[in-house]
Amino acid sequence: MKIVLIGASGTLGKAIERELAPRHEIISVGRNSGAIRADLRNLASLQALFKSTGSVDAIICAAGSVHFGPWNELTPDKFEIGLSDKLMGQVNVVLAGQATLVDGGSFTLTSGILSEDPIRYGASASLVNGALESFVRAAAIELPRGQRINIVSPTLLEESAQAYGPYFRGYRSVPASEAALAYSKSVEGAQTGQIYKVW
Amino acid sequence: MKIVLIGASGTLGKAIERELAPRHEIISVGRNSGAIRADLRNLASLQALFKSTGSVDAIICAAGSVHFGPWNELTPDKFEIGLSDKLMGQVNVVLAGQATLVDGGSFTLTSGILSEDPIRYGASASLVNGALESFVRAAAIELPRGQRINIVSPTLLEESAQAYGPYFRGYRSVPASEAALAYSKSVEGAQTGQIYKVW
Repeated sequence: MKIVLIGASGTLGKAIERELAPRHEIISVGRNSGAIRADLRNLASLQALFKSTGSVDAIICAAGSVHFGPWNELTPDKFEIGLSDKLMGQVNVVLAGQATLVDGGSFTLTSGILSEDPIRYGASASLVNGALESFVRAAAIELPRGQRINIVSPTLLEESAQAYGPYFRGYRSVPASEAALAYSKSVEGAQTGQIYKVW
Repeated sequence: MKIVLIGASGTLGKAIERELAPRHEIISVGRNSGAIRADLRNLASLQALFKSTGSVDAIICAAGSVHFGPWNELTPDKFEIGLSDKLMGQVNVVLAGQATLVDGGSFTLTSGILSEDPIRYGASASLVNGALESFVRAAAIELPRGQRINIVSPTLLEESAQAYGPYFRGYRSVPASEAALAYSKSVEGAQTGQIYKVW
């Protein structure tokens, strides 16, 4: 398959590439790195990306920023970071990518454990992850031409535990390679509308 | 109790008022009607609202618009309607209201069945409802002074079945009075972080 991987340079993206590259052609996309540059927050940037790739069999997004910070410092502007980047960025990938994706091709997006299991400082991340999971359930029944869509919800990655572990005390972490399996299941399987929890 | 009810003139708002008014003082708020006017999309408008009410025991939001429409006509701008209104509007109610809400007081927000059980035309509504439910789970662990927060997720209301029934074929509808009970449970009970499904 020909697979677009957005966020290829991240911890998760690298693990996804390691999992899929032996069997497939990976087109690596990043905001500031990768074979092709694109900005999730900008629909036109993604439309240009998919024009340049031509027809593809799968589109994976493992990118997107969101604000973390103290509850009493939250403002609409801080929520806006995650709304325009991790949330609408991934919705934009679907809106822009569907014309380019083959019949029966798959989208695989990324949420995270905080949609169900919140931590301090994580209200905006919870909101964004919950939005993405419900969007995927809805998109799965509306996408044209048998296109599929799933989302992977990882817990804390082992590779990120040194940086973020203090915020996730008591949470089991998993290696990024384990989370990468869920992307393989989505891309190489036949399911749609699923939330793959890697907890 | 002194209860702020935002969206008091809607089908759901009227039923909530009928349920709670016999036992409590209700301050009715609407965008274009009610004792006090406020615009959810504008944090300053809500801050002015809560300045005018003074200390309150409960804040209910049963308001918020979202775009419904064909999948192939969705654009970022159409998602933005629900993001700024039903989603961030209700987040704004919490951000603006917490200073005014008494210790142990409650917020009760409104999502809807589409977060879990999608329909055609409903991708933006699903996204917004899922975001709100995960936000409430997160806010429940961060709100100060024992403040509580819950969310009511109603299915199609009987009173709205003539207008929206064709989009919800096969869905059971409930009278708004039944949904109103969930708001009573949130306000007059002691739970927090709950999603009350009225399906």
